[in-house]
Amino acid sequence: MNFCSHCGSNQLDCKVPAGDHVARYVCQVCGTVHYVNPKMVVGCLVVHEERVLLCRRAIEPRYGFWNLPTGFLESGETVEEGAIRETWEEARARVKVERLHSVYSLPHCDQIIIHFVAQLQETGIEAGPESLEVNFFAETEIPWDDMAFSSHRFALERYFENRLKPDKQTYLGSSCLRTS
Amino acid sequence: MNFCSHCGSNQLDCKVPAGDHVARYVCQVCGTVHYVNPKMVVGCLVVHEERVLLCRRAIEPRYGFWNLPTGFLESGETVEEGAIRETWEEARARVKVERLHSVYSLPHCDQIIIHFVAQLQETGIEAGPESLEVNFFAETEIPWDDMAFSSHRFALERYFENRLKPDKQTYLGSSCLRTS
Ligand SMILES: [Zn+2]
Ligand SMILES: [Zn+2]
Repeated sequence: MNFCSHCGSNQLDCKVPAGDHVARYVCQVCGTVHYVNPKMVVGCLVVHEERVLLCRRAIEPRYGFWNLPTGFLESGETVEEGAIRETWEEARARVKVERLHSVYSLPHCDQIIIHFVAQLQETGIEAGPESLEVNFFAETEIPWDDMAFSSHRFALERYFENRLKPDKQTYLGSSCLRTS
Repeated sequence: MNFCSHCGSNQLDCKVPAGDHVARYVCQVCGTVHYVNPKMVVGCLVVHEERVLLCRRAIEPRYGFWNLPTGFLESGETVEEGAIRETWEEARARVKVERLHSVYSLPHCDQIIIHFVAQLQETGIEAGPESLEVNFFAETEIPWDDMAFSSHRFALERYFENRLKPDKQTYLGSSCLRTS
């Protein structure tokens, strides 16, 4: 951030506002405090006949690697709606959300990744514009070494480890070693 | 947004960028696309001797009404860390997160509210600067008509309805009637 998006001034000060406890960009001309918050990234772990839907990325970062269909939550969406939309965009799969599966924090890059377990509503799938190919994989077929992101790997590992348990909990993870 | 935060230009166009599907503010001078994403709000449902911790708000909006200790997730935090920090700030309660309890979407104001079930680590509580008072409430003592936010009411209702069930699922809700 170089300029105040409210008044256009370049006199931005990085300081802790009165009553706050974190440094923010504060405009010295109009007083606007510019907050930066983590972004939510949402997607689905689509299960069909004991296989899971993966997409091979046609975009950077991690072009050519595999991921669960996942992307940034948009303004005006519920988390479930965002996950369903991303699954359509990347894999042309129409799904219904079953439950919240995992929440994975990436505090060093200010992203929170949320995956739902979802079921196919129609049987067809097809690569969307951001995917090179899409397919269903059994546990032994998952390209573990070619997964694009640790958060998606986390979601897949927790799913396969626990899928036979009756208690369907939501799994919490993060990329840092701090304990919470 | 009136000015580009990257170059300071006031020539912002609200349009759908190439390859995108949602209108964004795009700077006509430097080309920066300004994304607006929902914010995450995180907090705890702290349970102690079958009672739940509530705080009476000393700040707007909803001054004087009750809430679960909850606030905006900050840059650099995991969701669990944010919820623990907010519980300390509002109620001076040191807690340990037990599980993810609820995720409630407010798509019309671009907020996602996440509550964890948490346990006290030390017995003391005290009103922080954003609270008029803090206290533990049994189910029959909850000030239901004086709760500040529907998302917190949702978290409390799901908790008390289901607390005797062995399966501890995460509850999904939203303020809209759209189905997902
Ligand atoms: Zn300004
Ligand atoms: Zn610009």
